[in-house]
Amino acid sequence: MHDYALCVNRIPVGILGASGYAGRELCMLLADHPSFAVAFATANEQRGQTVRVGRHTMTFIATDDAPLHQAQVVFSALPHGTSLPWVTRAREAGARVVDLSNDLRPGNGNSNGHETTNAPYGMPELGARTRAAIAAAGIVANPGCYPTSILLALTPLANAGLIAPGATIVANSASGVSGAGNAPKRELLFAEVAEDFRAYGVANTHRHLKEMSATLKTLHVDADLVFTPHLLPVVRGILSTITVPLTSALSDALAPYRNAYADEPFIEVTSDEPRLVDVQRRNVVRMTATMIGGTRTPTLLVRSAIDNLTKGAAGQAIQNANIMFGLAETAGLPR
Amino acid sequence: MHDYALCVNRIPVGILGASGYAGRELCMLLADHPSFAVAFATANEQRGQTVRVGRHTMTFIATDDAPLHQAQVVFSALPHGTSLPWVTRAREAGARVVDLSNDLRPGNGNSNGHETTNAPYGMPELGARTRAAIAAAGIVANPGCYPTSILLALTPLANAGLIAPGATIVANSASGVSGAGNAPKRELLFAEVAEDFRAYGVANTHRHLKEMSATLKTLHVDADLVFTPHLLPVVRGILSTITVPLTSALSDALAPYRNAYADEPFIEVTSDEPRLVDVQRRNVVRMTATMIGGTRTPTLLVRSAIDNLTKGAAGQAIQNANIMFGLAETAGLPR
Amino acid sequence: MHDYALCVNRIPVGILGASGYAGRELCMLLADHPSFAVAFATANEQRGQTVRVGRHTMTFIATDDAPLHQAQVVFSALPHGTSLPWVTRAREAGARVVDLSNDLRPGNGNSNGHETTNAPYGMPELGARTRAAIAAAGIVANPGCYPTSILLALTPLANAGLIAPGATIVANSASGVSGAGNAPKRELLFAEVAEDFRAYGVANTHRHLKEMSATLKTLHVDADLVFTPHLLPVVRGILSTITVPLTSALSDALAPYRNAYADEPFIEVTSDEPRLVDVQRRNVVRMTATMIGGTRTPTLLVRSAIDNLTKGAAGQAIQNANIMFGLAETAGLPR
Amino acid sequence: MHDYALCVNRIPVGILGASGYAGRELCMLLADHPSFAVAFATANEQRGQTVRVGRHTMTFIATDDAPLHQAQVVFSALPHGTSLPWVTRAREAGARVVDLSNDLRPGNGNSNGHETTNAPYGMPELGARTRAAIAAAGIVANPGCYPTSILLALTPLANAGLIAPGATIVANSASGVSGAGNAPKRELLFAEVAEDFRAYGVANTHRHLKEMSATLKTLHVDADLVFTPHLLPVVRGILSTITVPLTSALSDALAPYRNAYADEPFIEVTSDEPRLVDVQRRNVVRMTATMIGGTRTPTLLVRSAIDNLTKGAAGQAIQNANIMFGLAETAGLPR
Repeated sequence: MHDYALCVNRIPVGILGASGYAGRELCMLLADHPSFAVAFATANEQRGQTVRVGRHTMTFIATDDAPLHQAQVVFSALPHGTSLPWVTRAREAGARVVDLSNDLRPGNGNSNGHETTNAPYGMPELGARTRAAIAAAGIVANPGCYPTSILLALTPLANAGLIAPGATIVANSASGVSGAGNAPKRELLFAEVAEDFRAYGVANTHRHLKEMSATLKTLHVDADLVFTPHLLPVVRGILSTITVPLTSALSDALAPYRNAYADEPFIEVTSDEPRLVDVQRRNVVRMTATMIGGTRTPTLLVRSAIDNLTKGAAGQAIQNANIMFGLAETAGLPR
Repeated sequence: MHDYALCVNRIPVGILGASGYAGRELCMLLADHPSFAVAFATANEQRGQTVRVGRHTMTFIATDDAPLHQAQVVFSALPHGTSLPWVTRAREAGARVVDLSNDLRPGNGNSNGHETTNAPYGMPELGARTRAAIAAAGIVANPGCYPTSILLALTPLANAGLIAPGATIVANSASGVSGAGNAPKRELLFAEVAEDFRAYGVANTHRHLKEMSATLKTLHVDADLVFTPHLLPVVRGILSTITVPLTSALSDALAPYRNAYADEPFIEVTSDEPRLVDVQRRNVVRMTATMIGGTRTPTLLVRSAIDNLTKGAAGQAIQNANIMFGLAETAGLPR
Repeated sequence: MHDYALCVNRIPVGILGASGYAGRELCMLLADHPSFAVAFATANEQRGQTVRVGRHTMTFIATDDAPLHQAQVVFSALPHGTSLPWVTRAREAGARVVDLSNDLRPGNGNSNGHETTNAPYGMPELGARTRAAIAAAGIVANPGCYPTSILLALTPLANAGLIAPGATIVANSASGVSGAGNAPKRELLFAEVAEDFRAYGVANTHRHLKEMSATLKTLHVDADLVFTPHLLPVVRGILSTITVPLTSALSDALAPYRNAYADEPFIEVTSDEPRLVDVQRRNVVRMTATMIGGTRTPTLLVRSAIDNLTKGAAGQAIQNANIMFGLAETAGLPR
Repeated sequence: MHDYALCVNRIPVGILGASGYAGRELCMLLADHPSFAVAFATANEQRGQTVRVGRHTMTFIATDDAPLHQAQVVFSALPHGTSLPWVTRAREAGARVVDLSNDLRPGNGNSNGHETTNAPYGMPELGARTRAAIAAAGIVANPGCYPTSILLALTPLANAGLIAPGATIVANSASGVSGAGNAPKRELLFAEVAEDFRAYGVANTHRHLKEMSATLKTLHVDADLVFTPHLLPVVRGILSTITVPLTSALSDALAPYRNAYADEPFIEVTSDEPRLVDVQRRNVVRMTATMIGGTRTPTLLVRSAIDNLTKGAAGQAIQNANIMFGLAETAGLPR
């Protein structure tokens, strides 16, 4: 178990499902967080094992043995479909919760936090109202990795009313393999993934489509989304390449982004081509946009890069917890 | 120099620019071809060097020293912009020529072979008329790698009149690094490409866009094309993911492909997801298609995989030479 | 099932355990073999599935359903420890057998083929006596991948009496991940292997040590072997770097190799540094040797590269079968 | 240029040769150092360019324009052979210098710091005397990456008199490609390195051999060293696998390491197998050792992992500067 001497005057946190890639990232980032201290970390399959987390070590316990009442905030990185009962239990034990699973996200468990579950969607850069909802929330539904890269690339256009009504937005994303988790599956073996590239979850069958569609609806976007994820032979990172039909051509393609994100600490609007190596191990979205020449419909090409485990999962979860506890939003987060 | 004893009764071929990746692939494939025999291979920078080509060896000479008159067919893998004069010279020396450069491709040097240069576009699967033009040609303009993967994925739709007029086709492609050649550039170093992924040549600025647009025009496609290439951390292979607005929904998305390509030895229409590992070192295009659900515009998602050095360059060049010399189209080509 | 029309006048072969990496390589190579034809291929987990093998397809059956009597030769790529009963059964059904498992290799099931099992060690390049034993054998114990790369690098020195008695030979090998098989294990996931390198099976605990020690003994080598395998983030290939104390310095470090292997079709003695890319998908061993300067004990540094799935497994198995059936030793094998 | 407002009360440092991989790592680590502030960074080829360094930016100037007198400490990451004149110039301008080049290392420019150049070898873990020499030094010769991984694995054995006199130590190392620098060379292209592995600088011809031999001599080791580096298809990290003949067998192979390094903040003695992923981006050496069974000469197998850019270059350089300026040795260094 983590050294409790370190926890004095820090907010105790619990991590459920700590042995997956997102869970390990949570352990790593929280071990060095200035205001949070890990009280417990659960991992059923590896319970009793002591693992290295940066320069610290941590011993996993069974999820059933989690002393939920000891934590003021619980991060659940449990698998989709199994997280919700533990979220409820942690909430009942008095903790506030950031749920990294799919269970409560818009289009799935709730309708963007305005209804039954009262779990706002934890994407702070959607704006001031979202941040206020997160600050007040008992439960935050942490966004999926693909939606983080795609929705934050569309929001400035949506808010400026630039997206052509009735149009089709085409979002092609490519993700590193850590996004698929560390359960041992043949198709994720090194010898199967190296030197390969392929689409999967095509034709809008990927779980994240609902989350994006529901959120675009709340942004009043009246367009269809075609989302095609691909599996990259890299460990970390997502690049989304998004084609957006506009109501009219932009003379400065970056202007909507620079306006919307001028004060955002975790968004980098750049005229360079965003690369995975620019964002790996950093809690940022890096994006650029360019008008396509020569098409009849004015069309914008947006490219957006994140680290799927940081801004796409554990980093954004901690960003949400920072907001929930009134800490600096950037506390403990690598930039 | 290659062992001439092997050349008896085989058609002598010359290779210009043999030290690049496409040139080396030509050497490798031609060294085992049943009907062609390499008479000479040029590589200015490596002239005088003997290199291993499969189980054979080959000694490069300077391009200026090429005995063009000894070859019945010359393959030019010289850089774009420098190939055309050598194509002309080889032709004047009596050889027929397959030009792997950009210099004579549609939208660049010629207008699909119907005009001045009389160099038909060497994409046999465009149909019987193209094959006839290749068979009769003195010079063939061998297609680019990206256009091979994209145009062959669109042709059956175009010929069936299925592409919605005035629409925007979105083609996202990802290519292995060998497509960028082996000139030493910092951005292509292992330490720069590994664990990375990024777009390049965006917003329809890539050289291959012209070639595709010109060809789509000859196919009577009245749609815009948005083409975005990406650099993959793999050595060989291209996957293109193409979103095509249709005039009406297809009940069987593969039907147009199965109809069009039933007799094509180098096209694999599949219900599986095409992967790079399925096509590497093979002279094939492997493709599938799926209707997207839930969009107002009926939209087809096509995925198409090739090896950029085989079907995307050297293999297709040999396929063209096979046609030019009345050989079996599949002779010497790995499937 | 494979198209039987192709089997006319070819020797029917069976493959047990066809879905592992070595088994798939056997399917691939045998599908194009001029004299063998695959009569059946078994894979319990994937029974009933039809898989693509190069340009052919093959349907797997359960191992229990294997019509062993239909095959004149059976290749067993079943897991170590489970192969021997099937080898016996296939032999009883009248087939000759090449066993790719560990079960009958020297130091394990037999004592180099001179005793009970009468299964000679199938490493043809050990010399004429070994080839004769293979030609006459009912069962051949196909060598392990590491031993192939190491023993063939030591044999010329051993036969020339050059290895210092009582010395310690240090063999460091690095293998691509396909050598670990395709059973889904967490430690073999892409996200665990990429950007990593580590030793395993250290301190002479690897299964292949016995096989090498037993064979060195039959070569009358009175030296200790320290063998340390490592896991490389590549799919295919083994490089062994071997330090050998000699009885005296060699003026020409390659001479013993050139003498020993002058007529070997599958051994390449080179003054270049052997690389994995030089041997991938080829049934060869590529090796070089250099005298170390400035050490008190004359010491030779040998580097030896193979493809673990070809010369290290399936290729060598077919090479053995070629010898068993009096075919050209190189038939159907990529060089 | 770096924001000078940040520099108040921090020690100004200069970086010569900031655009190579080690130079960039220096920029990255120093940008977040609590006590140093980057006053200037030079890069001739990229002079005038502003680059991103973590969340900061930096503008490179020409080396000739370096305001050497503004820096209290200068780090030279200039190429081997060109660094020494600049080291001298910086020293004359009043700065203390950490030289990351080969120019002043033992066996090259000096004799371990006891002579003319008065530049001690900056490997603090060699012991208290070395640390004292570094603290007092005007110039420190920062060790090479391979020597860091190998010498720190041998020092405890040497100091305990455990290495067999007259024996041959065999050190096989494998390094990520960043160790070869970012000058554009064909052999370092992604398409040349991926899926490959090969030795280079064999037979004790590598530049680092002298540095290791000279240092072993000062440790009174009377043994020969055979050093063989290899090129790994990874970006960062070195694993050294070292076979050491001992005077007698160890009952606890880790005891000498645990004793020697009990108080070292940057050395991790472990019973696990050291992996590159355990040390990447960390300023540590991670090592283990195992007695080999069954050899006549008692033999120890040591495995030692570092990040070549951190502990193997920039990190160790900052560790040395920390010592020179009386700061906490761990200040600003990732563990």
